[in-house]
Amino acid sequence: MHIGLVGLGKMGGNMRTRMRNAGLTVVGYDRNPDVSDVDSLAALVDALPSPKVVWVMVPSGDPTRSTIAELKELLGEGDLVVDGGNSKYTDDAVNAASLAEKGIGFVDCGVSGGVWGLENGYALMYGGAAEDAAKVMPAFEALKPGDTEDGLVHCGSAPGAGHFAKMVHNGIEYAMMQAYAEGWELLEKSELVENVPDIFSSWRTGTVVRSWLLDLLTEAIREDEHLDKLRGYAEDSGEGRWTVEAAIENAVPMHVIAASLFARFTSRQDDSPAMKAIAAMRNQFGGHAVHTEPPPGGEANPDV
Amino acid sequence: MHIGLVGLGKMGGNMRTRMRNAGLTVVGYDRNPDVSDVDSLAALVDALPSPKVVWVMVPSGDPTRSTIAELKELLGEGDLVVDGGNSKYTDDAVNAASLAEKGIGFVDCGVSGGVWGLENGYALMYGGAAEDAAKVMPAFEALKPGDTEDGLVHCGSAPGAGHFAKMVHNGIEYAMMQAYAEGWELLEKSELVENVPDIFSSWRTGTVVRSWLLDLLTEAIREDEHLDKLRGYAEDSGEGRWTVEAAIENAVPMHVIAASLFARFTSRQDDSPAMKAIAAMRNQFGGHAVHTEPPPGGEANPDV
Amino acid sequence: MHIGLVGLGKMGGNMRTRMRNAGLTVVGYDRNPDVSDVDSLAALVDALPSPKVVWVMVPSGDPTRSTIAELKELLGEGDLVVDGGNSKYTDDAVNAASLAEKGIGFVDCGVSGGVWGLENGYALMYGGAAEDAAKVMPAFEALKPGDTEDGLVHCGSAPGAGHFAKMVHNGIEYAMMQAYAEGWELLEKSELVENVPDIFSSWRTGTVVRSWLLDLLTEAIREDEHLDKLRGYAEDSGEGRWTVEAAIENAVPMHVIAASLFARFTSRQDDSPAMKAIAAMRNQFGGHAVHTEPPPGGEANPDV
Amino acid sequence: MHIGLVGLGKMGGNMRTRMRNAGLTVVGYDRNPDVSDVDSLAALVDALPSPKVVWVMVPSGDPTRSTIAELKELLGEGDLVVDGGNSKYTDDAVNAASLAEKGIGFVDCGVSGGVWGLENGYALMYGGAAEDAAKVMPAFEALKPGDTEDGLVHCGSAPGAGHFAKMVHNGIEYAMMQAYAEGWELLEKSELVENVPDIFSSWRTGTVVRSWLLDLLTEAIREDEHLDKLRGYAEDSGEGRWTVEAAIENAVPMHVIAASLFARFTSRQDDSPAMKAIAAMRNQFGGHAVHTEPPPGGEANPDV
Repeated sequence: MHIGLVGLGKMGGNMRTRMRNAGLTVVGYDRNPDVSDVDSLAALVDALPSPKVVWVMVPSGDPTRSTIAELKELLGEGDLVVDGGNSKYTDDAVNAASLAEKGIGFVDCGVSGGVWGLENGYALMYGGAAEDAAKVMPAFEALKPGDTEDGLVHCGSAPGAGHFAKMVHNGIEYAMMQAYAEGWELLEKSELVENVPDIFSSWRTGTVVRSWLLDLLTEAIREDEHLDKLRGYAEDSGEGRWTVEAAIENAVPMHVIAASLFARFTSRQDDSPAMKAIAAMRNQFGGHAVHTEPPPGGEANPDV
Repeated sequence: MHIGLVGLGKMGGNMRTRMRNAGLTVVGYDRNPDVSDVDSLAALVDALPSPKVVWVMVPSGDPTRSTIAELKELLGEGDLVVDGGNSKYTDDAVNAASLAEKGIGFVDCGVSGGVWGLENGYALMYGGAAEDAAKVMPAFEALKPGDTEDGLVHCGSAPGAGHFAKMVHNGIEYAMMQAYAEGWELLEKSELVENVPDIFSSWRTGTVVRSWLLDLLTEAIREDEHLDKLRGYAEDSGEGRWTVEAAIENAVPMHVIAASLFARFTSRQDDSPAMKAIAAMRNQFGGHAVHTEPPPGGEANPDV
Repeated sequence: MHIGLVGLGKMGGNMRTRMRNAGLTVVGYDRNPDVSDVDSLAALVDALPSPKVVWVMVPSGDPTRSTIAELKELLGEGDLVVDGGNSKYTDDAVNAASLAEKGIGFVDCGVSGGVWGLENGYALMYGGAAEDAAKVMPAFEALKPGDTEDGLVHCGSAPGAGHFAKMVHNGIEYAMMQAYAEGWELLEKSELVENVPDIFSSWRTGTVVRSWLLDLLTEAIREDEHLDKLRGYAEDSGEGRWTVEAAIENAVPMHVIAASLFARFTSRQDDSPAMKAIAAMRNQFGGHAVHTEPPPGGEANPDV
Repeated sequence: MHIGLVGLGKMGGNMRTRMRNAGLTVVGYDRNPDVSDVDSLAALVDALPSPKVVWVMVPSGDPTRSTIAELKELLGEGDLVVDGGNSKYTDDAVNAASLAEKGIGFVDCGVSGGVWGLENGYALMYGGAAEDAAKVMPAFEALKPGDTEDGLVHCGSAPGAGHFAKMVHNGIEYAMMQAYAEGWELLEKSELVENVPDIFSSWRTGTVVRSWLLDLLTEAIREDEHLDKLRGYAEDSGEGRWTVEAAIENAVPMHVIAASLFARFTSRQDDSPAMKAIAAMRNQFGGHAVHTEPPPGGEANPDV
């Protein structure tokens, strides 16, 4: 199979390698000429036999939208665009409809795997018409983990089904990470417990909480027991946010995933405006002007 | 009525004044001789006619427990101890049973009002036998807000009922404060809204969210619009913690009060151990050694 | 002042009365001819002198959008539309821009007050240009609570500022209600406490938690102590949802408002899909087929 | 090695088998004579050579406490008691101190593994003095999973360290389960997604969320796609509660584990008292007596 691949960053670059290792002919394009096989999107399209299949692997939002708009100009009837980036699921119907105006097919595909994907394969969740998916199936087979029926799933025939599933995957991931993080903090603070890295390590076999994320955290605290080298700072991607928004839209109570998202927001604040407001109200209890330090203790003042 | 008052801090000192203003004879004792009327607990007890009523207004835990133990030695049949501090409700049954061995009555009383109490009166929630409460009723009437049937309530005949109600009051207070705080932070961050102090001020009349806490927060942001002079730091008293523990014991889902307590915990952390663990796992996604900075953006990497 | 008022339901009907009581000339239109003063929107517009001011008080979303679209056809240069419904703040910029094409001004206004508004006045939060607001100021003055500077606020000159503030007001309201609700449930379940309605009633004076919502809840449990006549079921309006969405967009941690929204979602579920999944996993611990009943207790099985 | 095992329920019975399969001589005692090897605790102790090692595997709380009190009478200097049940970690110091009065050693051990433990081994987390642990090490080696260094960990030399670690393990487990549950509910409700069991199944390979719990949930929804046969009802064990209590004691923000616990509380309520209170307040907005049904929609009433 011939395939075009747009975006050769950490993910795209490795995916090109994995597909080539599986025997596919991959033409890659990236704005960075050092990694690009061709010098333009047009050149990439030209290099493909018909029906042309182009896999887009660029940041979500405007970069993906503009890449797909450009491809709409370059491709034609029977060709196929795959959006393998982390687009919001609602973008997919728009992109699919736009491409359909020229008879170009569209498949959305959530991709999980990070840098291990090159070696272990990528988990793929895709949405779209089965006949469109068939055109890119050799790439799916090359990218997915070998020796398993898992790791590749058709989530629905509507555009966006794949990204929706991947989005929920990431929401679950946030809360799982937060679960381990809260447990780790409690163990760290406990005076009873002495060997936290050993405890996490031991959990990797035979327990209810064993998982790949547990393996990762174990690895990290083996290297740096109290994580002294790290700041407690976490970005969030769009997917965590969209998961909570989709929950609200569907009236799904989502206490733990939302709380995990909010914990990331908090982690990025130098100081918390909300907690300033709490401090302000507590100071007002005292009936005097605001303070910059907490009030002294040692008295019976049950209200603060 | 004669009454002994142990503990003349910010709360106790004002309560002495309010009771005296109402015509009660109050003998106050405090470790600080500058504010104390007598030089020992024994002298306080000696100064009271029988049946003697002693109101304890010292910090909860050991100070209250040891004061009550000392009073048990000094008082006798028919006398009464009132614990007006912020004791845990489970302490009250222990103290009541201990005092009962000598025929000394016990009433627990949660007190709300802060520094406004002197002028406006204190809200009182008490527990214990009605006949014991009758002995301290003139003090209750002096302390409570005037011109209302509210502000004084018999919460139950079991020792601890008053402190339990006061504890729940404080739990509710935490979550109400957090509600305003979250709303304020969102208004502060919104680019649409220009006059946040005016908005809060306007809410004080005619809205669903009008309350005394709203008045306090309005006052604070009128003085310091963005609360620049404050750190987002909040202590928590025992009562917030005990409320959540009591909820757990009674299988009561308590999402918002617990979250408000946790927000205070977070506010006191220089860095969050839990979020270090999140950062550690995210770094491991990259398959390389830990970093001190978040990874650069700009690539399609849907997993982090 | 002459004003047109579209939508004469529970809110609009009372607002018409309050404005008339203040001496304004109000022409009301409603689809329900029994309450309508005129038989069409066109007739309403015809009845107004220029510059015409029309206050829209219909459900948010399509009804408001289509009413404003119709008014755009009927009104002209220098006229003004006020959206006093509970529209999403993002709708306002769209409506304002559309009306501006014909030189029609736009003010968005959040209204709080419920059925008490007729007597006590409505709290009003508005957004838009000051010169537009001036055209409707007599109506604002008539509707707002009397004898106070509060209850009316200009939230910002951008369209949507008023609805944004009102939205946050409602988000805060959700969490305040949840705070009281959780506290009430704990008091109801406590065996120590005997007089829950009296406790809530007493809190209305002198405490930190006194508020209008406390008054409402006190009233309710005075009438029906254990709320036996009610189901624990709560709808949510758009504003609670939008508040959480706006928080996500602005990276504001919003633990308690979000949890309050989720509690409403849960209240409307006959059974919880999420908790079915929990039950399913717990059953799988047992290594056997799924069950419809919880496993029997009485054994040391620390995993479930 | 000879070992006594008290409690032969689902866990204890399988543990006896696994230890016997490993060549240990196990004397089991249970109140149920059908499964018991001896007819009394005294007979069990008599059957053991010195130093005697007795593993207690009965429900936490009174059953464990009374069993250990009885063993204190029967054992002597140099013997050892292992508490392998799900005791609260604070019980362990009490039991250890009591047994130490007679020179009897004590080790606490959290055990994970459920019914798979027989075949796959049990994950063991123990606390106590190394020299005490040495006496039971052959049993630990027999019970733990084979062919791994994981699955067995010395958590600290203080009694309770093992149960503390196991407790945190269960707290993490609660939140992980809730994470999957919330994600599953959202996928179930989404109209985009068609093949939820396939999606979960696919996640088992190559994704960030792969785990043993994911395997369990996948198995469950493969058997009963929408979990129609289950009620959304979940018990909670002491460990989830104690984890949150320990977090409060250590000022650890624990949003997701606490929320997971509360979700279980909610799942067991026929109706929510808290949500009745919400409904009551919303009805009061209407200014009229309470209702049993939600108010009709269709009007602009921005307050409810």
